Amino acid sequence: MPKIDLDAFAQLNSTGYPPPFDEPVAGRWQRRVGARLGLTALGASHVVLKSGAWSSQRHWHAGEDEFLVMLSGEAVLVENAGETLLRAGDCAAWPMGLRNGHHLVNRSEEDCAFLCFSAGDREAGGAYSDIDMIFTTEGYKHKDGTPYPTRRLR
Amino acid sequence: MPKIDLDAFAQLNSTGYPPPFDEPVAGRWQRRVGARLGLTALGASHVVLKSGAWSSQRHWHAGEDEFLVMLSGEAVLVENAGETLLRAGDCAAWPMGLRNGHHLVNRSEEDCAFLCFSAGDREAGGAYSDIDMIFTTEGYKHKDGTPYPTRRLR
Repeated sequence: MPKIDLDAFAQLNSTGYPPPFDEPVAGRWQRRVGARLGLTALGASHVVLKSGAWSSQRHWHAGEDEFLVMLSGEAVLVENAGETLLRAGDCAAWPMGLRNGHHLVNRSEEDCAFLCFSAGDREAGGAYSDIDMIFTTEGYKHKDGTPYPTRRLR
Repeated sequence: MPKIDLDAFAQLNSTGYPPPFDEPVAGRWQRRVGARLGLTALGASHVVLKSGAWSSQRHWHAGEDEFLVMLSGEAVLVENAGETLLRAGDCAAWPMGLRNGHHLVNRSEEDCAFLCFSAGDREAGGAYSDIDMIFTTEGYKHKDGTPYPTRRLR
Protein backbone atom coordinates (compact mmCIF):
# COMPACT_ATOMS: atom_id res chain seq x y z
CA MET A 1 0.00 0.00 0.00
CA PRO A 2 2.29 2.79 -1.18
CA LYS A 3 1.46 6.49 -1.40
CA ILE A 4 -2.25 7.23 -1.02
CA ASP A 5 -3.90 8.67 -4.12
CA LEU A 6 -6.34 11.08 -2.49
CA ASP A 7 -7.89 11.96 -5.84
CA ALA A 8 -9.21 8.40 -6.04
CA PHE A 9 -11.45 8.91 -2.99
CA ALA A 10 -14.96 10.27 -3.29
CA GLN A 11 -15.58 13.65 -1.67
CA LEU A 12 -18.79 13.79 0.32
CA ASN A 13 -20.50 16.79 1.87
CA SER A 14 -23.24 14.81 3.58
CA THR A 15 -24.14 15.50 7.19
CA GLY A 16 -26.68 14.19 9.66
CA TYR A 17 -26.98 17.56 11.42
CA PRO A 18 -30.58 18.73 11.68
CA PRO A 19 -31.39 22.10 10.09
CA PRO A 20 -30.31 24.81 10.53
CA PHE A 21 -27.10 23.32 11.97
CA ASP A 22 -26.33 21.63 8.64
CA GLU A 23 -25.99 24.90 6.72
CA PRO A 24 -22.48 25.94 7.81
CA VAL A 25 -21.05 22.52 6.83
CA ALA A 26 -22.58 22.43 3.33
CA GLY A 27 -19.19 23.49 1.93
CA ARG A 28 -17.25 20.79 3.84
CA TRP A 29 -16.04 18.02 1.50
CA GLN A 30 -14.72 14.94 3.25
CA ARG A 31 -12.79 11.88 2.14
CA ARG A 32 -13.11 8.99 4.62
CA VAL A 33 -9.59 7.79 3.95
CA GLY A 34 -8.93 5.56 6.94
CA ALA A 35 -12.04 3.40 6.73
CA ARG A 36 -11.62 2.97 2.99
CA LEU A 37 -8.03 1.78 3.49
CA GLY A 38 -9.06 -0.79 6.08
CA LEU A 39 -8.08 1.11 9.22
CA THR A 40 -10.37 0.14 12.09
CA ALA A 41 -8.87 1.74 15.22
CA LEU A 42 -7.48 4.93 13.66
CA GLY A 43 -9.86 7.42 12.06
CA ALA A 44 -8.35 9.44 9.21
CA SER A 45 -10.24 11.95 7.06
CA HIS A 46 -9.13 14.45 4.42
CA VAL A 47 -11.32 17.54 4.51
CA VAL A 48 -11.64 20.49 2.14
CA LEU A 49 -13.47 23.58 3.37
CA LYS A 50 -14.80 25.91 0.72
CA SER A 51 -14.73 29.63 1.46
CA GLY A 52 -17.10 30.25 4.38
CA ALA A 53 -17.51 26.61 5.37
CA TRP A 54 -17.13 25.20 8.88
CA SER A 55 -15.50 21.85 9.70
CA SER A 56 -18.38 21.04 12.07
CA GLN A 57 -20.44 22.67 14.75
CA ARG A 58 -18.09 23.51 17.62
CA HIS A 59 -17.87 20.26 19.61
CA TRP A 60 -15.87 18.02 21.93
CA HIS A 61 -15.69 14.22 22.26
CA ALA A 62 -16.13 12.34 25.55
CA GLY A 63 -14.14 9.30 24.41
CA GLU A 64 -12.06 10.21 21.35
CA ASP A 65 -8.72 11.92 20.93
CA GLU A 66 -8.37 14.15 17.87
CA PHE A 67 -5.36 15.55 15.98
CA LEU A 68 -5.56 17.96 13.03
CA VAL A 69 -2.88 18.80 10.45
CA MET A 70 -3.41 21.73 8.07
CA LEU A 71 -2.30 20.88 4.54
CA SER A 72 -3.09 24.00 2.49
CA GLY A 73 -4.85 27.32 2.72
CA GLU A 74 -5.85 28.75 6.06
CA ALA A 75 -8.67 28.51 8.56
CA VAL A 76 -9.54 29.96 11.93
CA LEU A 77 -9.60 27.52 14.83
CA VAL A 78 -12.30 28.52 17.32
CA GLU A 79 -12.06 27.16 20.86
CA ASN A 80 -13.33 28.13 24.32
CA ALA A 81 -10.34 30.40 24.85
CA GLY A 82 -10.54 32.22 21.52
CA GLU A 83 -9.35 32.03 17.95
CA THR A 84 -6.10 30.91 16.28
CA LEU A 85 -5.22 31.16 12.59
CA LEU A 86 -3.96 27.84 11.20
CA ARG A 87 -1.86 27.61 8.04
CA ALA A 88 -0.20 24.74 6.14
CA GLY A 89 1.91 22.65 8.50
CA ASP A 90 0.14 23.83 11.65
CA CYS A 91 -1.24 21.18 14.01
CA ALA A 92 -3.75 21.09 16.85
CA ALA A 93 -4.94 18.30 19.15
CA TRP A 94 -7.74 17.62 21.66
CA PRO A 95 -7.61 14.85 24.26
CA MET A 96 -10.80 12.89 24.85
CA GLY A 97 -13.03 14.31 27.56
CA LEU A 98 -11.62 17.82 27.42
CA ARG A 99 -14.69 20.07 27.19
CA ASN A 100 -12.95 22.54 24.92
CA GLY A 101 -15.33 22.86 21.99
CA HIS A 102 -13.44 23.35 18.72
CA HIS A 103 -13.99 23.73 15.00
CA LEU A 104 -12.40 25.35 11.96
CA VAL A 105 -13.97 28.18 10.00
CA ASN A 106 -12.64 29.07 6.57
CA ARG A 107 -12.91 32.86 6.49
CA SER A 108 -10.59 33.14 3.49
CA GLU A 109 -11.58 33.37 -0.15
CA GLU A 110 -9.72 30.15 -1.07
CA ASP A 111 -10.26 26.49 -0.26
CA CYS A 112 -8.33 25.07 2.66
CA ALA A 113 -7.53 21.40 3.30
CA PHE A 114 -6.61 19.44 6.40
CA LEU A 115 -6.25 15.91 7.71
CA CYS A 116 -8.04 14.89 10.90
CA PHE A 117 -7.17 11.80 12.94
CA SER A 118 -9.13 10.24 15.79
CA ALA A 119 -9.00 7.24 18.09
CA GLY A 120 -10.88 5.98 21.13
CA ASP A 121 -14.50 5.18 21.86
CA ARG A 122 -16.71 6.77 19.23
CA GLU A 123 -19.81 5.51 21.03
CA ALA A 124 -19.08 7.71 24.05
CA GLY A 125 -20.52 10.68 22.17
CA GLY A 126 -20.01 14.30 23.12
CA ALA A 127 -21.57 17.72 22.92
CA TYR A 128 -21.75 20.94 20.94
CA SER A 129 -20.65 24.13 22.65
CA ASP A 130 -22.75 26.81 20.96
CA ILE A 131 -26.05 25.08 20.21
CA ASP A 132 -28.63 22.96 22.04
CA MET A 133 -27.32 19.58 20.80
CA ILE A 134 -25.38 16.52 21.95
CA PHE A 135 -24.35 13.41 20.01
CA THR A 136 -24.91 9.90 21.36
CA THR A 137 -25.09 6.34 20.08
CA GLU A 138 -28.76 6.97 19.40
CA GLY A 139 -28.10 10.10 17.37
CA TYR A 140 -28.48 13.82 17.91
CA LYS A 141 -30.43 15.07 20.91
CA HIS A 142 -31.30 18.30 22.61
CA LYS A 143 -29.42 18.80 25.86
CA ASP A 144 -32.60 17.77 27.72
CA GLY A 145 -32.47 14.38 25.93
CA THR A 146 -35.21 15.01 23.35
CA PRO A 147 -34.09 13.49 20.04
CA TYR A 148 -33.65 15.45 16.83
CA PRO A 149 -35.37 13.81 13.84
CA THR A 150 -32.23 13.34 11.69
CA ARG A 151 -29.88 10.36 11.70
CA ARG A 152 -26.24 10.69 12.74
CA LEU A 153 -24.06 9.49 9.86
CA ARG A 154 -21.33 6.89 10.43
CA MET B 1 -5.08 24.11 23.29
CA PRO B 2 -4.49 26.14 20.14
CA LYS B 3 -1.77 25.55 17.53
CA ILE B 4 0.92 23.12 18.68
CA ASP B 5 4.37 24.67 19.07
CA LEU B 6 6.51 21.76 17.90
CA ASP B 7 9.71 23.61 18.77
CA ALA B 8 8.71 23.36 22.43
CA PHE B 9 8.95 19.55 22.37
CA ALA B 10 12.20 17.74 23.08
CA GLN B 11 13.66 15.76 20.17
CA LEU B 12 14.90 12.32 21.18
CA ASN B 13 16.92 9.84 19.15
CA SER B 14 16.79 7.08 21.74
CA THR B 15 15.97 3.52 20.69
CA GLY B 16 15.68 0.18 22.43
CA TYR B 17 16.89 -1.72 19.36
CA PRO B 18 19.80 -4.03 20.13
CA PRO B 19 22.99 -3.44 18.14
CA PRO B 20 23.56 -3.45 15.24
CA PHE B 21 19.88 -2.73 14.51
CA ASP B 22 20.10 0.59 16.35
CA GLU B 23 22.64 2.11 13.97
CA PRO B 24 20.30 3.05 11.07
CA VAL B 25 17.97 4.95 13.44
CA ALA B 26 20.70 7.01 15.15
CA GLY B 27 19.72 9.96 12.91
CA ARG B 28 15.98 9.68 13.73
CA TRP B 29 14.81 12.50 16.00
CA GLN B 30 11.34 12.04 17.46
CA ARG B 31 8.93 14.29 19.31
CA ARG B 32 6.31 12.30 21.24
CA VAL B 33 3.62 14.91 20.64
CA GLY B 34 0.46 12.97 21.39
CA ALA B 35 1.44 11.61 24.79
CA ARG B 36 2.80 14.98 25.88
CA LEU B 37 -0.51 16.65 24.95
CA GLY B 38 -2.54 14.14 26.94
CA LEU B 39 -3.72 11.92 24.09
CA THR B 40 -4.16 8.36 25.32
CA ALA B 41 -5.83 6.45 22.46
CA LEU B 42 -4.21 8.25 19.51
CA GLY B 43 -0.45 8.04 19.04
CA ALA B 44 1.09 11.09 17.33
CA SER B 45 4.80 11.63 16.74
CA HIS B 46 6.76 14.21 14.77
CA VAL B 47 9.90 12.67 13.29
CA VAL B 48 12.93 14.21 11.59
CA LEU B 49 15.24 11.92 9.64
CA LYS B 50 18.74 13.18 9.04
CA SER B 51 20.37 12.30 5.73
CA GLY B 52 20.84 8.54 5.67
CA ALA B 53 18.61 7.78 8.64
CA TRP B 54 15.82 5.20 8.75
CA SER B 55 12.47 5.70 10.49
CA SER B 56 12.75 2.20 12.01
CA GLN B 57 13.68 -1.29 11.02
CA ARG B 58 11.15 -2.45 8.42
CA HIS B 59 8.21 -3.71 10.51
CA TRP B 60 4.48 -4.33 10.80
CA HIS B 61 2.08 -4.19 13.77
CA ALA B 62 -0.30 -7.00 14.72
CA GLY B 63 -2.74 -4.70 16.53
CA GLU B 64 -2.09 -1.10 15.50
CA ASP B 65 -3.16 0.96 12.50
CA GLU B 66 -0.63 3.51 11.26
CA PHE B 67 -0.91 6.62 9.07
CA LEU B 68 2.02 8.76 7.92
CA VAL B 69 2.00 12.32 6.54
CA MET B 70 5.17 13.75 4.96
CA LEU B 71 5.71 17.37 6.00
CA SER B 72 8.98 18.37 4.32
CA GLY B 73 11.89 16.92 2.40
CA GLU B 74 11.68 13.47 0.87
CA ALA B 75 12.17 9.86 1.85
CA VAL B 76 11.87 6.46 0.25
CA LEU B 77 9.10 4.25 1.57
CA VAL B 78 10.22 0.60 1.46
CA GLU B 79 7.53 -2.10 1.58
CA ASN B 80 7.19 -5.74 0.54
CA ALA B 81 6.19 -4.71 -2.98
CA GLY B 82 8.99 -2.22 -3.54
CA GLU B 83 9.88 1.42 -3.07
CA THR B 84 7.93 4.70 -3.35
CA LEU B 85 9.33 8.22 -3.09
CA LEU B 86 7.34 10.35 -0.61
CA ARG B 87 7.40 14.16 -0.66
CA ALA B 88 5.66 16.89 1.35
CA GLY B 89 1.91 16.26 1.44
CA ASP B 90 2.17 12.58 0.55
CA CYS B 91 0.44 10.08 2.84
CA ALA B 92 0.63 6.34 3.46
CA ALA B 93 -1.26 4.00 5.79
CA TRP B 94 -1.03 0.44 7.12
CA PRO B 95 -3.94 -1.43 8.70
CA MET B 96 -3.20 -3.53 11.78
CA GLY B 97 -2.28 -7.12 11.03
CA LEU B 98 -1.20 -6.52 7.45
CA ARG B 99 2.20 -8.21 7.19
CA ASN B 100 3.54 -5.57 4.84
CA GLY B 101 6.77 -4.47 6.50
CA HIS B 102 7.43 -0.78 5.96
CA HIS B 103 9.85 1.98 6.87
CA LEU B 104 11.20 5.24 5.49
CA VAL B 105 14.80 5.77 4.41
CA ASN B 106 16.14 9.27 3.88
CA ARG B 107 18.45 8.87 0.89
CA SER B 108 18.54 12.61 0.24
CA GLU B 109 21.16 15.07 1.45
CA GLU B 110 18.59 17.12 3.43
CA ASP B 111 16.52 16.46 6.54
CA CYS B 112 12.99 15.23 6.02
CA ALA B 113 10.11 15.45 8.49
CA PHE B 114 6.86 13.54 8.88
CA LEU B 115 4.01 12.96 11.30
CA CYS B 116 3.05 9.41 12.23
CA PHE B 117 -0.26 8.45 13.85
CA SER B 118 -1.25 5.13 15.41
CA ALA B 119 -4.15 3.55 17.25
CA GLY B 120 -5.09 0.09 18.46
CA ASP B 121 -3.50 -2.46 20.77
CA ARG B 122 0.17 -1.64 21.23
CA GLU B 123 0.65 -4.75 23.36
CA ALA B 124 -0.15 -7.01 20.41
CA GLY B 125 3.40 -6.50 19.12
CA GLY B 126 4.59 -7.29 15.64
CA ALA B 127 7.63 -8.29 13.63
CA TYR B 128 10.51 -7.01 11.55
CA SER B 129 10.68 -8.09 7.93
CA ASP B 130 14.42 -8.06 7.19
CA ILE B 131 16.03 -9.13 10.47
CA ASP B 132 15.64 -11.89 13.05
CA MET B 133 13.55 -9.87 15.49
CA ILE B 134 9.99 -9.49 16.78
CA PHE B 135 8.54 -7.05 19.33
CA THR B 136 6.31 -8.19 22.18
CA THR B 137 5.07 -6.93 25.55
CA GLU B 138 8.23 -8.47 27.03
CA GLY B 139 10.53 -6.67 24.61
CA TYR B 140 12.57 -7.63 21.58
CA LYS B 141 13.07 -11.31 20.77
CA HIS B 142 14.59 -13.46 18.09
CA LYS B 143 11.97 -15.15 15.93
CA ASP B 144 12.59 -18.38 17.91
CA GLY B 145 11.53 -16.53 21.09
CA THR B 146 14.98 -15.96 22.59
CA PRO B 147 15.05 -12.47 24.12
CA TYR B 148 17.46 -9.73 23.09
CA PRO B 149 19.21 -8.08 26.06
CA THR B 150 17.91 -4.52 25.43
CA ARG B 151 14.69 -3.00 26.72
CA ARG B 152 11.91 -1.88 24.37
CA LEU B 153 11.24 1.83 24.98
CA ARG B 154 7.72 3.10 25.61
